[in-house]
Amino acid sequence: MKFGTGIGIVISCLGVAMGATMEGTNVMVVINVPAILIVLVGTLGATIAACGLESHIRVPKLFMKAFMPEDLNLVARVNQLVGFADQARRDGLLALDEAVKGIDDPFTRKGIQLVVDGTDPDLVAAVLDAENDAMRKRHAAARNPFMQAGALAPTMGIVGTVFGLVNVMNNLNNPSSLGPLIAAAFLATLMGVGSANVVFLPMANRLKELSEAELHFREMTLEGILAIQAGDNPRVVEEKLMAYVPPKDRPTEADKQASAAAAKQAA
Amino acid sequence: MKFGTGIGIVISCLGVAMGATMEGTNVMVVINVPAILIVLVGTLGATIAACGLESHIRVPKLFMKAFMPEDLNLVARVNQLVGFADQARRDGLLALDEAVKGIDDPFTRKGIQLVVDGTDPDLVAAVLDAENDAMRKRHAAARNPFMQAGALAPTMGIVGTVFGLVNVMNNLNNPSSLGPLIAAAFLATLMGVGSANVVFLPMANRLKELSEAELHFREMTLEGILAIQAGDNPRVVEEKLMAYVPPKDRPTEADKQASAAAAKQAA
Amino acid sequence: MKFGTGIGIVISCLGVAMGATMEGTNVMVVINVPAILIVLVGTLGATIAACGLESHIRVPKLFMKAFMPEDLNLVARVNQLVGFADQARRDGLLALDEAVKGIDDPFTRKGIQLVVDGTDPDLVAAVLDAENDAMRKRHAAARNPFMQAGALAPTMGIVGTVFGLVNVMNNLNNPSSLGPLIAAAFLATLMGVGSANVVFLPMANRLKELSEAELHFREMTLEGILAIQAGDNPRVVEEKLMAYVPPKDRPTEADKQASAAAAKQAA
Amino acid sequence: MKFGTGIGIVISCLGVAMGATMEGTNVMVVINVPAILIVLVGTLGATIAACGLESHIRVPKLFMKAFMPEDLNLVARVNQLVGFADQARRDGLLALDEAVKGIDDPFTRKGIQLVVDGTDPDLVAAVLDAENDAMRKRHAAARNPFMQAGALAPTMGIVGTVFGLVNVMNNLNNPSSLGPLIAAAFLATLMGVGSANVVFLPMANRLKELSEAELHFREMTLEGILAIQAGDNPRVVEEKLMAYVPPKDRPTEADKQASAAAAKQAA
Amino acid sequence: MKFGTGIGIVISCLGVAMGATMEGTNVMVVINVPAILIVLVGTLGATIAACGLESHIRVPKLFMKAFMPEDLNLVARVNQLVGFADQARRDGLLALDEAVKGIDDPFTRKGIQLVVDGTDPDLVAAVLDAENDAMRKRHAAARNPFMQAGALAPTMGIVGTVFGLVNVMNNLNNPSSLGPLIAAAFLATLMGVGSANVVFLPMANRLKELSEAELHFREMTLEGILAIQAGDNPRVVEEKLMAYVPPKDRPTEADKQASAAAAKQAA
Repeated sequence: MKFGTGIGIVISCLGVAMGATMEGTNVMVVINVPAILIVLVGTLGATIAACGLESHIRVPKLFMKAFMPEDLNLVARVNQLVGFADQARRDGLLALDEAVKGIDDPFTRKGIQLVVDGTDPDLVAAVLDAENDAMRKRHAAARNPFMQAGALAPTMGIVGTVFGLVNVMNNLNNPSSLGPLIAAAFLATLMGVGSANVVFLPMANRLKELSEAELHFREMTLEGILAIQAGDNPRVVEEKLMAYVPPKDRPTEADKQASAAAAKQAA
Repeated sequence: MKFGTGIGIVISCLGVAMGATMEGTNVMVVINVPAILIVLVGTLGATIAACGLESHIRVPKLFMKAFMPEDLNLVARVNQLVGFADQARRDGLLALDEAVKGIDDPFTRKGIQLVVDGTDPDLVAAVLDAENDAMRKRHAAARNPFMQAGALAPTMGIVGTVFGLVNVMNNLNNPSSLGPLIAAAFLATLMGVGSANVVFLPMANRLKELSEAELHFREMTLEGILAIQAGDNPRVVEEKLMAYVPPKDRPTEADKQASAAAAKQAA
Repeated sequence: MKFGTGIGIVISCLGVAMGATMEGTNVMVVINVPAILIVLVGTLGATIAACGLESHIRVPKLFMKAFMPEDLNLVARVNQLVGFADQARRDGLLALDEAVKGIDDPFTRKGIQLVVDGTDPDLVAAVLDAENDAMRKRHAAARNPFMQAGALAPTMGIVGTVFGLVNVMNNLNNPSSLGPLIAAAFLATLMGVGSANVVFLPMANRLKELSEAELHFREMTLEGILAIQAGDNPRVVEEKLMAYVPPKDRPTEADKQASAAAAKQAA
Repeated sequence: MKFGTGIGIVISCLGVAMGATMEGTNVMVVINVPAILIVLVGTLGATIAACGLESHIRVPKLFMKAFMPEDLNLVARVNQLVGFADQARRDGLLALDEAVKGIDDPFTRKGIQLVVDGTDPDLVAAVLDAENDAMRKRHAAARNPFMQAGALAPTMGIVGTVFGLVNVMNNLNNPSSLGPLIAAAFLATLMGVGSANVVFLPMANRLKELSEAELHFREMTLEGILAIQAGDNPRVVEEKLMAYVPPKDRPTEADKQASAAAAKQAA
Repeated sequence: MKFGTGIGIVISCLGVAMGATMEGTNVMVVINVPAILIVLVGTLGATIAACGLESHIRVPKLFMKAFMPEDLNLVARVNQLVGFADQARRDGLLALDEAVKGIDDPFTRKGIQLVVDGTDPDLVAAVLDAENDAMRKRHAAARNPFMQAGALAPTMGIVGTVFGLVNVMNNLNNPSSLGPLIAAAFLATLMGVGSANVVFLPMANRLKELSEAELHFREMTLEGILAIQAGDNPRVVEEKLMAYVPPKDRPTEADKQASAAAAKQAA
């Protein structure tokens, strides 16, 4: 899941640039200040109008997140939760109190803390569900500027091109200038469609997929925490949680025996 | 969350205007009476047909709301509700009767009043849910003229441009007038796409986001009111409600101690 | 909520007609028989194919409904239901038997009749829910021809224009006829986009909003009927139902005292 | 509900043909083999790729179904079910055993058979729900080729036209052939948009409406079967099921008395 | 359900190629390196940006899956499950322990294993539901690159064409080169629309249908496993599961007797 977005944008730009160069166009023409002003500044203003200033401050962080997404290790999390289930079954839920401090993930830590505090199971589920729901909404709001930009940029490109063509039509009596003027008018369309296709829409989709993966991860964690609180058999907890793991990532019987052997040897 | 929409529309217009000027077009050409009549009056009529006259009377108020949205302070509301939970636990639900008058927000006031009146918890939830559901529908109906205008304006622009081109085609025997006539025909497209992209669609999205934020705010409030009525421990109420607050806005342990110390000093 | 659709269509047509006239086009050119045949008859045939003949028989009635929608007086309905709740509480549910005949609205009458007949509350809710669900489906089917026409007319316009351009291309050797032929070809696009934007799409949206308003009205009524059957306190019934009324239409305390005084004086 | 689709397609084709003829185009030009190959065969191949070969074998049957839909007589079904309720109440559920053989509709027969067999009510509901759900999925899969074709045909038309224009551009040195070549190129667009608008999209919508009507019919039947099993009063069963019937088709009191009198006379 | 996708793509390509050839275009022109670079490499990069590198590694496997889908034999699965129900009823659930090893399908095996292990029915349902839900999400993520490519390729085609036209406009002083240059510019549109229509969109839809069919298959299996665990009568289990089978595939009474006779003869 790593580096995909950055690599993809580079591949896409290279493909377009090489193709255009082979056709005989100087790719540098796209760096056309009027087109940039109309399309990129015009789109930026419209997305600020649509989503507020605040959500634009997070944009650089979102690029970072999409370019270098966190690795969500489902199997490690299952093992961690099965470990807690094991410990809770042997020594009681209070025995997890010490483990809580060692948990890196704030969501898991909050959940286990609630369990250790003896909170009612329905309330644990309600609080963690509310956390997930609020995260889902936050993520949706955060990627909305990219979705808006993806929808608006191509039509801002048309605005730029039509402005250019209006200019062309008012200069019909000077035929030799028409070609370059029309070419310049088209650059706004290029800028609009290109930025939407290569940056805005892929970013919006990527952030959506990362958000869904994180929610899936958290749903599994929530399921595990509730199972720990219910005092389920660790083997049952593992069975339950492994359903969330893609079959190809699930440890085989051989893996399990090897890791058990390694654990024994280490002990 | 403040002023985003106004600033965004200004940035977008400036970007487009500067780009067009650099290309050599006089931006003032967009103030073209036939284009305005066809696109803006035509779209206004169609949205009145689609949404009724009444919903257009609210349009200026909606611009105000989008330009200067209310600040929804989630943390302050949590603290207020935790305060009520504390008081109710110490002195009984009836003790909130006096507090009711001091509550600014009508939704919170109505909810606490119902609780003080000893209304059945299911009924409190039903009444407040109905309030929220009705608000959601009202908001959706209120922003619908903007959504309709965003969808219709670009095609009304095409209507205007095609009318212009019909005119052009009937004047083909007068070649010198063609350029300006075609340019004028294009202005309707500019007006249609521009008004949709820079005003109507961003406004519709902004109003949707503000509506969702308000609903989120109210859902948290409803959760808190029900917890107060259930006599939940104030610490549990806080835990529950903080799940609705974005992590970065949640008070840290240090904040809490500082505010506790300040409260003590003030006392 | 009155007359909005008719007025809107007139405003839209006037705006377009005035703009086109100022541009120098004779608006009467749109009354072009080939364009009307291709676009309007072609679209009519396609919507008949899509929705059946029967749903087109209702179209004139739907125009009437959209042009002069019934006034849904939420407050009057609340007062009526609170009155029934009051009477039922004082004199028992059977006392409503006489009131039933005086109820104009068939949905309310059916509901109260079921209550008077001593039908099981779950069954009352099920029957009235089924009524509402069936109405929602009927309304959706009824407005579907407008939605289909709104989606198909612009592309039927393209069919007409392309037919015209095929004709143009086969007459290239007669240059003087080209302008008027191209102009005529464009009229089909105008007809298609114009009829969709000014009539079909607004009508479809308007009918949807009216349907939603009626469902909202009926949901409130259903809630009230069930509360009456449950023997709820009339003040509680009012509280519950007022949540469905927009805040600005709710009677203030002053209104209530005035109406109470008027009632007393009348008595 | 009868014959609508066939009539609609004929009306649409006639409208387009007459309009085009009046414009001066020979309608027969649309029978253009290259355009048919690119648009219709190209679209057919793409829908086979999208939906599998099997779903295309059912296409002729679907045309038959859309052209001559079964008549779903809601009132007759209500009367049948009320009759069963009456018989079951008088003579017990087993008395329906004989009636089962006389039921034409397989869904009703299966339901009543399950009831007669003494199947648990929850299981009856589960089996019949699963039947309906499976039917809904089958219908959706069956109409999908039409939806895919409706979405793909216009763009296959563009493919055909662009191929034609590529050909035109390579023959620019032969100006007299340009007109007919461009005209021929446009025919693919006509074929694509026309077939989608007049056949594929209306068929897809029609099949959807017929499927929804059948599901509505079956939901009513299921409701009735469960009421019969529960031993509900026949008058209550009628009340319940009539909610599914459009108000204008419901028998009035006068109708009922007339039919009761007729029944008595017949007896 | 076999081979549909491969055959469809071949039919579609043949149709387009034959049509284009008859029009006089050399089909081989579409193998245009700049168009391929801009459209296919550009789209590939954008889908990598949108969906990550990992999901592209599975693409060849997905083509295999769509070209040669597994045959889901609903009736065979029903018979297998009814057989288990029969055995469980006769010899108890533990008797299935031996059968488990012989089950090919991992989902069925896991479910029966859970049942044999005496797992709580709610937990069996929860684990298998989580499996299905996770599979649904995995499938949706897996086909997303095709959906993204289907949406992006046509607009990448426009990018390529506009680049070509910019080039054309800068060579207006060399009229003899214009035709071939414009033709080359159009090839990018052809490539974009064609690849989306003939490959990407049909593949995305096909994978969606296959995923839905597999989920339907598994839902039926889950229903059967729970019925086995509940100790339902095998005849009831069959009745329940047959509801998932299309009526035309259900064995008739004659089939059943024939197979019973065959079984007897074989025994």
